[in-house]
Amino acid sequence: MADAASLADVRLTPAKGGITAPAGFKTAGVHCGIKATAALDLAILAADGPASAAALFTTNLAQAAPVILSRRHIGHTQGSARAVVVNSGCANACTGDVGLAHARMMAVETAGAVGCTPEEVLVASTGVIGVTLNIDRVVAGIRTAARALSPANGSEAARAIMTTDPFPKEHAVTVDTPQGSFRIGGMAKGSGMIEPDMATMLGFLTTDAQVAPAMLRQALQASARDTFNAITVDGECSTNDCLFAMASGASGVAIDGASYPALLEGFLAVSRELALGIVRGGEGATKLIAITVTNARTIDAARQVARTIANSPLVKTAVHGADPNWGRIVAAAGRSGVSFDIDQATVHVGGILLFENGLPHDDAAPLAAEHLKGKTVQIDVSLGSGAESATIWTCDLTAEYVRINGEYRT
Amino acid sequence: MADAASLADVRLTPAKGGITAPAGFKTAGVHCGIKATAALDLAILAADGPASAAALFTTNLAQAAPVILSRRHIGHTQGSARAVVVNSGCANACTGDVGLAHARMMAVETAGAVGCTPEEVLVASTGVIGVTLNIDRVVAGIRTAARALSPANGSEAARAIMTTDPFPKEHAVTVDTPQGSFRIGGMAKGSGMIEPDMATMLGFLTTDAQVAPAMLRQALQASARDTFNAITVDGECSTNDCLFAMASGASGVAIDGASYPALLEGFLAVSRELALGIVRGGEGATKLIAITVTNARTIDAARQVARTIANSPLVKTAVHGADPNWGRIVAAAGRSGVSFDIDQATVHVGGILLFENGLPHDDAAPLAAEHLKGKTVQIDVSLGSGAESATIWTCDLTAEYVRINGEYRT
Repeated sequence: MADAASLADVRLTPAKGGITAPAGFKTAGVHCGIKATAALDLAILAADGPASAAALFTTNLAQAAPVILSRRHIGHTQGSARAVVVNSGCANACTGDVGLAHARMMAVETAGAVGCTPEEVLVASTGVIGVTLNIDRVVAGIRTAARALSPANGSEAARAIMTTDPFPKEHAVTVDTPQGSFRIGGMAKGSGMIEPDMATMLGFLTTDAQVAPAMLRQALQASARDTFNAITVDGECSTNDCLFAMASGASGVAIDGASYPALLEGFLAVSRELALGIVRGGEGATKLIAITVTNARTIDAARQVARTIANSPLVKTAVHGADPNWGRIVAAAGRSGVSFDIDQATVHVGGILLFENGLPHDDAAPLAAEHLKGKTVQIDVSLGSGAESATIWTCDLTAEYVRINGEYRT
Repeated sequence: MADAASLADVRLTPAKGGITAPAGFKTAGVHCGIKATAALDLAILAADGPASAAALFTTNLAQAAPVILSRRHIGHTQGSARAVVVNSGCANACTGDVGLAHARMMAVETAGAVGCTPEEVLVASTGVIGVTLNIDRVVAGIRTAARALSPANGSEAARAIMTTDPFPKEHAVTVDTPQGSFRIGGMAKGSGMIEPDMATMLGFLTTDAQVAPAMLRQALQASARDTFNAITVDGECSTNDCLFAMASGASGVAIDGASYPALLEGFLAVSRELALGIVRGGEGATKLIAITVTNARTIDAARQVARTIANSPLVKTAVHGADPNWGRIVAAAGRSGVSFDIDQATVHVGGILLFENGLPHDDAAPLAAEHLKGKTVQIDVSLGSGAESATIWTCDLTAEYVRINGEYRT
């Protein structure tokens, strides 16, 4: 969270247009034939001129070709990019040297179409792992998309990057500051968080503020920590995860130390909306669950306990069944690897105290069960051992999740 | 695994009688009224005289009253016990001082019935967390069970410790050695491995060999590592897990350094059968999955990779759907935290090579899919980075798991 004092004069208001709400960006989403259906499967996001860029990549040891290539490209340009090209329907992961060559061809083709060097193009892919791209279709799609680039196509792009996502995720805000106004836009996809086949998480942020690459990277990392990196659908981590940010500078507002908190606040607002959209649209999900751990010794300890609870299949199934089963929450916290005194811990569900002083408050269980019947669930765990806190968002585990992932591909 | 050379003259053969196959033990299983149905819910296992004893307990920070009490008792006696009393249907966990008093009353009542000190009684409970025991019914049940103690009641005891287990788990072997013959018996329960409500893992081993407490503990720890501690249903860890061993000495065969490998081999055989029974009977399970990781730098690294794959909901749902989705296996290994070179790794499913040199062998996928349709699935991952290996067993993740855990209690 940015410093509150420095944000007194800053106002965030929702804006239309998603990824192209900020000035200086065009986009397009087309169907090129990677997906068997007629659904959109290729998107280009292009800045009108050279833009600052920052990127975060999956920490999985197995990295897809576009991840390897994009990391090289942004290292080569030291934080500058002109365009991003994204395909869905094929992850181009575990595809060896051919896969790398295909990712490079996507960058070369996009560079030719928008007028920049291949190194100024970032590439992202999502879809089935271990399958080689139909590069002829992709190249044809890039040409079609390049001709269709427009500031009005944000929604097409947001749909073109989807795989099993039940709905597109896009959001934008206008940030008014004493130094001037600028916009931040974004789109994301992901359904299992960070999942190797269908539901890799991809996120894209744009702004028309003028931001130096190092500061852009700082804002991206800081906002991702509490948004894209604070969600989990199934605890999986993909070969293809990417989060990209581009700053066009078209608003004329230059971000410095004084206005950085406003930029960060805007990044947080857009990223949170997109990240929670991913959880709400998680595979088989029917509920959004926020797990807040307070009074931990460190933020990392709070995150570790919250994440263990969030990934507990027993907690997720209990929430699905609207069962105020605090015992599963206590047991997950107890096996998280974080040391704390159970007798000092408390558990609230929907603000209702269920566990304190090592004992249940089962008389309150029916009230908590009512809360659990809603679409948004709040679980609070106090460890009683410090002053730090963290929130992790997840969704419930349902028979539909099993169906989606058990029946896929076969 | 015990030294092969020292096992040349050792022969293991299955024996009848389960936990009471070894001489010197009696048991009983009764219905005392903790469960709402007429199902058995209380068991006593008693040695005819003082026995060596060893115990392993859950590592969860949240420990149930019987765990706290049993740990104290076996510490007090320094590895001697006369009886174990177990109830199902109520975990006596998160029940505060009242819960501890109830666990102690179970020990006192059992001690009075079998003629020993309360400290010579170990107590275990499994069932719903956060609910206070109906101690009057339990005390009455202990009296009834004590009158029914018999060497012929192994199966009743194995059924009385069940919760959602679809079938009882019991096994016994006769161990013939140059020093003489002895028996090892056991029973276990558990359905979610190590689950806070219904499916805590409890394991009990008996032997009529004469074993000093320190050596009994050594055999219990060593055999648990590759059996009870090498299974996972859902990655959860309970407040109530216990594994107890008792040695009556009734066979007259004293275990020393020369015959220890035979004892360990017998413990491994019985524990493996019981542990795999827990996985086969895992909540909602339809398949037993063995995940063997080879060519790791250390055994711990091999276990960590195998465990990450075993707990991956995407791998578990893919196996359920008979989908040879090696990408999910590679991605789970890649996020396990163990460092290795993906290009050196291989993945086999049912002995069929699916991934090598960073590339898929998708032509073999239909064969692997056939293997996955069976009840027992073998997944082999070579990390290509060392000489150590480990196996973890798990089951598939099914809609039935969600149903059991989403609809329980409400």
